[in-house]
Amino acid sequence: MGSNTFRLVVFRYRPGGSFQLVDEIRHAVRLSGGAGPRGLHPDALERAGHAANLYRAFCDAAGVDDVAAVTTSAVRDGANRDEALAALSVDGALEVRVLSVEEEAWYGYLGAVNSTTLVDGHVLDLGGGSVQVSQVAGRRLGEVVSRPLGAVRMTERFLSDERASRSDIRALRRHVGRELDELEWLTGTGGRMVGIGGTIRTLASMYQRSVRYPLMGELHGYHLSREGIDELIDTMAALPASERSRIPGLKQDRADITLAGAVVISSVLERAGVEAIEICSQGLREGIFYERFLSPAAPPLIPDIRRQSVMNLVDTYRCDLPHVEHVCLLALAMYDELARLGLHVSDPSEREMLWAAGMLHDAGVLVDYNDHHKHGYYLVLNAGLPGYAHHELAMIALLVRGHRKGQPSLSPLEDILRRRTARGTRSDDGDEGTLLRLAMCLRIAEQLERGRARGIRGLTLEATASELRLLVTAIGDPSVAMWSAGLETPIVQSALGRRLELAVAG
Amino acid sequence: MGSNTFRLVVFRYRPGGSFQLVDEIRHAVRLSGGAGPRGLHPDALERAGHAANLYRAFCDAAGVDDVAAVTTSAVRDGANRDEALAALSVDGALEVRVLSVEEEAWYGYLGAVNSTTLVDGHVLDLGGGSVQVSQVAGRRLGEVVSRPLGAVRMTERFLSDERASRSDIRALRRHVGRELDELEWLTGTGGRMVGIGGTIRTLASMYQRSVRYPLMGELHGYHLSREGIDELIDTMAALPASERSRIPGLKQDRADITLAGAVVISSVLERAGVEAIEICSQGLREGIFYERFLSPAAPPLIPDIRRQSVMNLVDTYRCDLPHVEHVCLLALAMYDELARLGLHVSDPSEREMLWAAGMLHDAGVLVDYNDHHKHGYYLVLNAGLPGYAHHELAMIALLVRGHRKGQPSLSPLEDILRRRTARGTRSDDGDEGTLLRLAMCLRIAEQLERGRARGIRGLTLEATASELRLLVTAIGDPSVAMWSAGLETPIVQSALGRRLELAVAG
Repeated sequence: MGSNTFRLVVFRYRPGGSFQLVDEIRHAVRLSGGAGPRGLHPDALERAGHAANLYRAFCDAAGVDDVAAVTTSAVRDGANRDEALAALSVDGALEVRVLSVEEEAWYGYLGAVNSTTLVDGHVLDLGGGSVQVSQVAGRRLGEVVSRPLGAVRMTERFLSDERASRSDIRALRRHVGRELDELEWLTGTGGRMVGIGGTIRTLASMYQRSVRYPLMGELHGYHLSREGIDELIDTMAALPASERSRIPGLKQDRADITLAGAVVISSVLERAGVEAIEICSQGLREGIFYERFLSPAAPPLIPDIRRQSVMNLVDTYRCDLPHVEHVCLLALAMYDELARLGLHVSDPSEREMLWAAGMLHDAGVLVDYNDHHKHGYYLVLNAGLPGYAHHELAMIALLVRGHRKGQPSLSPLEDILRRRTARGTRSDDGDEGTLLRLAMCLRIAEQLERGRARGIRGLTLEATASELRLLVTAIGDPSVAMWSAGLETPIVQSALGRRLELAVAG
Repeated sequence: MGSNTFRLVVFRYRPGGSFQLVDEIRHAVRLSGGAGPRGLHPDALERAGHAANLYRAFCDAAGVDDVAAVTTSAVRDGANRDEALAALSVDGALEVRVLSVEEEAWYGYLGAVNSTTLVDGHVLDLGGGSVQVSQVAGRRLGEVVSRPLGAVRMTERFLSDERASRSDIRALRRHVGRELDELEWLTGTGGRMVGIGGTIRTLASMYQRSVRYPLMGELHGYHLSREGIDELIDTMAALPASERSRIPGLKQDRADITLAGAVVISSVLERAGVEAIEICSQGLREGIFYERFLSPAAPPLIPDIRRQSVMNLVDTYRCDLPHVEHVCLLALAMYDELARLGLHVSDPSEREMLWAAGMLHDAGVLVDYNDHHKHGYYLVLNAGLPGYAHHELAMIALLVRGHRKGQPSLSPLEDILRRRTARGTRSDDGDEGTLLRLAMCLRIAEQLERGRARGIRGLTLEATASELRLLVTAIGDPSVAMWSAGLETPIVQSALGRRLELAVAG
């Protein structure tokens, strides 16, 4: 029950196994709206009580057997805390925890580190009432600061007029600067910063629309630059508050408070010397869930986010585990052999994308065997893979799509990859070259494992200027594998400019 | 092992439960190519032996535990049958059945009636060697005729030149006419005709591309008009054989034989007085599979194709059965109440689409709860629903998409629905009106069942000129249901031009 938004999220899970979000109800309650020295406003408490009562009834009706109701800075800092708690708890029917600053930061941190690969850096959580910045070192929570700089509060204090003036925005920036002034651990440190909360998601959504981002709506893992945020600030400030919801991606019930929120975020990034923030679509609520889901692990951290993401989809889409693992083994063996022969430079990130695509290449069979490469592309792209950056997700999805039929192609995700390339990449043949090389490894591995019986045990490569010779070791009759792999001659030609020759060892 | 194409299809199934195509290998062997009075050509037998050997090795490697190898008219009618069988059986390693005319028709019939709603009409199966036409009456197989009018044979006899002349095409039409002359049960009967085989699928694919069909590639259930086939005949005949594969949808290895096949199909349709053929993507191979899958049922018929299709997807996408069944119950109750009040005319087809969409509305949650209406649209549309016509499939998918968030819209499938509308529809408010009315029923039902606990047991409607009053009977606290259903006021306004009022009975 946040200072701006109330949200009920329902998870279904097997402890230690897999989990799934199954329902969500959201209300723009604006609990901290109109708050003053005497505490939260009676109208706000009435709206809050109404929503809380509905959530209680929902949990009863749906038979949710473990309810965690929490609230944050609006109630924590409000002068009429007891009155507020009575409203939120529906006179005791819901047990509502008022999170301390430390708890709020802790759960936000848990949501962020369990859905990103953040090891060292910061988590920035901007709510309606307060902003938390948490330091993360070696995946552990370090320093935490909380300041009453939430989007609703700052709007009411600095930007409540219909028109936002440049001087109001400057005043807000100065205020944020002063509030963060003595925090040495945050000043000019640079590095990774993960952002959570509704305001940050809204800004990402707006920016994606303004640039017609190809993965529009895929917010988790999106990098939003400070420059981009400043552009959005200008766009919003140029419009009267009542007309800002015309900006694509900006919902009506956030149209007034997002400008102040954006200024706060931009100021924090500037102070920290961070050029872009990584959007995390999870947060406090998910953090509370992870504590239960991962119990009794302490701290409740998923050991390997990327592996967990891939295995979640392998399970969801019912991939044939022995088959896909063997395809990965052969594909990675090819990848390593190409490096050994100097035909490419081994890159851990490429290798991991190849692994992920190998595990998920058959996901689309769930929809239909025909065109299952296209269905797999859709399923992987739209489910998302927390822990992978968007350009990696795009490459993995393109590999799934390119694992059979036709020449693999960067379109329609070219833009995502090109943007990344502009920021520098290790491969020397560009994204198209990477896609072709990885797809070649995956396709040959898949063909060698066509019989799904793990009959091809291993492989080595030899190369001449014009030829790539693939030597396999086999148990049983290798004729299907040889015939199938032979169909991949064209991709070897496009990827390496060499003829594929096949032979069985021994 | 057909007269033109060899295909290995692998099904995974639980007898009497669900089934899934899991692998497919295809070779354009052209077994009947170059056949003469002394039987099948030695080159053709060599190609056939090579493919058969590969299929045998595949079945061994993959551990396929039930192999059914069959061949049809090329071997059946060839003078060197024993020699051919030796090649196909890989010297006895595969047990190959040479299907009789009756068996070939029987399995084609089983494939067709188990994947369409055909009750009375005909099945037309055009292969490389022969054409079968089977009469279906009350879902049972009636008369059967087989003639040596296959696409490869007719190409070699009438249209083997690089350029097809009008007189050659006329001669082929006359020949088909003569061959079918004495078949009274086929002459001018009209009615439904279901088409199976590679040539018919190819023609459908070509035609879909030529008109930029929105469900491009979804061949099963597509209606291809005789007029459309005749257009394709003109298009193909205008090009030399070696250039026909430039026509979108026409594969290289069918580029020469599809013209003759199209002429045969057009001639049969003309003779039967049928204006369009319904494409069935299943056939003989699936028929053989159904015999095993449905055993010991005799005849091996799926009792209700549409129900089976929907339930297959409910199972595949792991929908919450008690929840979706209750949503259907409430949605259909609304539908019937609207009819009782004279607010629309009850239509069994609409009612069934509403049921299917109700069963599948949550399918997309498998991919992600966020945007699950969009994911469900993709999953339903791309898996397909055998037994439903394309305009019904489109409407069901649009309803899944429209079951939450925003105003339901006909785009991007408008074309499919408009085409159907042009051929006449029973509803008086067009497809958009139908979509709105059905989506309204579905959305209100879903909201009433928001708690997923079947607390709303039933409903009745009352209407005035300006108001639609929904009266529910409830077990337990109905406040979530009432609040949720209240969110659907806008769609009631667009569908019926009335205000929604809610009340709890008793």
